[in-house]
Amino acid sequence: MIKLSEPFFFGNELSFLKKSLEDKWISSNGNIVKSFEKKLQRYTTGDYNLGVINCTAALQLAVRLLNPKKDEEILVPSITFAATINSILYNNCKPVFFDCDNFLLLDKKKIYSFFEKNTYFKNGYSYNKKTKKKILAIIVVNTFGNLFDIDKNFSAFCKKKNIKIIEDAAESLGSINYDKQRRNKIDFSCYSFNGNKLITSGGGGILSLKNKKQHIKASYLASQAKNDAINFIHNDVGYNFMLSNLHASIGLAQLLNIKKVLKKKKNINFAYKKRINKINGLKILDSPEKCSSNYWLNILVIDSKKYGLSKKEIIKKFLNQGIETRSLWYPNHLQKPFNKFQSYQIKNSKTMFECCICLPSSYGLNNNQQLKIVNLLENRFKIKK
Amino acid sequence: MIKLSEPFFFGNELSFLKKSLEDKWISSNGNIVKSFEKKLQRYTTGDYNLGVINCTAALQLAVRLLNPKKDEEILVPSITFAATINSILYNNCKPVFFDCDNFLLLDKKKIYSFFEKNTYFKNGYSYNKKTKKKILAIIVVNTFGNLFDIDKNFSAFCKKKNIKIIEDAAESLGSINYDKQRRNKIDFSCYSFNGNKLITSGGGGILSLKNKKQHIKASYLASQAKNDAINFIHNDVGYNFMLSNLHASIGLAQLLNIKKVLKKKKNINFAYKKRINKINGLKILDSPEKCSSNYWLNILVIDSKKYGLSKKEIIKKFLNQGIETRSLWYPNHLQKPFNKFQSYQIKNSKTMFECCICLPSSYGLNNNQQLKIVNLLENRFKIKK
Repeated sequence: MIKLSEPFFFGNELSFLKKSLEDKWISSNGNIVKSFEKKLQRYTTGDYNLGVINCTAALQLAVRLLNPKKDEEILVPSITFAATINSILYNNCKPVFFDCDNFLLLDKKKIYSFFEKNTYFKNGYSYNKKTKKKILAIIVVNTFGNLFDIDKNFSAFCKKKNIKIIEDAAESLGSINYDKQRRNKIDFSCYSFNGNKLITSGGGGILSLKNKKQHIKASYLASQAKNDAINFIHNDVGYNFMLSNLHASIGLAQLLNIKKVLKKKKNINFAYKKRINKINGLKILDSPEKCSSNYWLNILVIDSKKYGLSKKEIIKKFLNQGIETRSLWYPNHLQKPFNKFQSYQIKNSKTMFECCICLPSSYGLNNNQQLKIVNLLENRFKIKK
Repeated sequence: MIKLSEPFFFGNELSFLKKSLEDKWISSNGNIVKSFEKKLQRYTTGDYNLGVINCTAALQLAVRLLNPKKDEEILVPSITFAATINSILYNNCKPVFFDCDNFLLLDKKKIYSFFEKNTYFKNGYSYNKKTKKKILAIIVVNTFGNLFDIDKNFSAFCKKKNIKIIEDAAESLGSINYDKQRRNKIDFSCYSFNGNKLITSGGGGILSLKNKKQHIKASYLASQAKNDAINFIHNDVGYNFMLSNLHASIGLAQLLNIKKVLKKKKNINFAYKKRINKINGLKILDSPEKCSSNYWLNILVIDSKKYGLSKKEIIKKFLNQGIETRSLWYPNHLQKPFNKFQSYQIKNSKTMFECCICLPSSYGLNNNQQLKIVNLLENRFKIKK
């Protein structure tokens, strides 16, 4: 089986695990967690990183740090993993769904038009005309490594409307935006180190924050909101969210190999593009101009009419050949638990869902395997119609 | 420093971690998780175990499996760790707080009297007279290893009132109740494998369930509620809660040593009791008659008038000697985020809070260390007044 996105172990993982055992510190608040948080600063938007159990928890905490009140609203793209939406619901807030562009990133133009037509500004906050609820934030999602570009206009716009920017960077560790000011425009970034990600900690996430005060607040909430640890006084409702030293050990070991991974991922993308983009009806999804993607996953964009096979057929034919692929996420504004929430002029998300699949992109993918995948596509799975 | 409750590593932990790396499976759904869940059946109340990220998540899932509606109520002792209460709030339900008895366990008599005076039964459900809200369940907490006794009366009463029983067994793995029918009376049990517990997985919990159908539902919810993993169809709001193979590796290694741990813990308890119970004004908390505790932590009960030192003074004096102790939890019905909720005739919880501290009880506690602790208590910290 050629897997979609398998973890790769470099050999140093075990020594970090050993160290964690020798230190007798395998649960939260360990030294390896601290090193992992610190060493990640080169790649994260904030100077203060907090290791948490997973990226879902990081997103939940980010929303929580906005001090949300019930039913307040967060703008979010429909095309993302469900966890992005769940992090809003866990906080008893409501999502408002938006469309994506052809890079699978939030469509900025529709954000501007939504604010113009559907919101009003009062006492320093933006409100949704329809619901009269405050709009707290926008979650931008860096889909498959493509970075959402926060240009000057967008940043100034969000400031003017008093909308915080949360970056769901679950899939974009190591992606580079040429705008050096980008990091200053983001309030919270959330990274994933799940088993299928660019590098993994086995399970884990990072909430990256701009300032120390918020880092302290986030740590407090993530460790059960203890105001007095001896007498167990809690002044708030906290969570059991801290990253364990055990998972951080794997994360740290992998982080030391990230440059190798980024290089290999770029090569995989290059090899896919080179041949697949010549096939009539197929192409590999581009990255936006201002972004150098980490190429976490390669997205095959299918023009079924030209190519002669539908997305579903291609997934099935790959599976028959022992090759794991995956559809783009089904648009969240259409999902059963979310379709009651407001959505704004969504068209492209559905179109992209119909034509996008993820191709195997593991670090361990070898030339022969990649050749097999490309050959199958070139030969239309050897079925000459 | 003599720690309150330190993990102890037996040497086999590393080989299980190695196996997990060799299998290339360190995140959720691994084989070691499955073995851990299965091998735990000897100790858990249910036949179906689900490994989750921590006991808080297990409790949150247990409440969620009741299909709670907003503001429905769960009865709970005031004396417990805050996570028990938070698991109710995460589900947008409300706690009703109850008193504890002298074993620090839920006071059954007050439950009966609450139902008699403050509830009514209608269409098969119990309702709170004051709030008109449905009462869904009761969470019984096995404090410090002491098992809450679910006798025939209590079990029949809960059935009659249609109240589910959730067992917060975070601290009671390995405790034995002589009533062999006990397990059948419990709907869900939740176990913790946090770093400070009897045995640890570094971080992790088990939700133990009675039937397969509920186990499937719990797994579904704990793994982001995916109804179709290829197309990412979600028909419900799920969580990112699955236990990693990495943490299960440690848990499984530790589980193989549980008998040694239980024996040592019993000895520690015996040694404390033998001498401390002879000191005027001090005693070690007893276990209820029908229970053989795991003696996870030893609780020192202080009669300040007789002993001449208050709880706070004793904690401080121990700390000065490099000995870590801990207060009983501050009663939750008095905590800032919870004091708005209903509480019923709570008296003893406050009294117990004033006089109970936890003594060092680690598996690795040696005779000299224990002697030092007992000598300090016997000599009233060498300060003759």
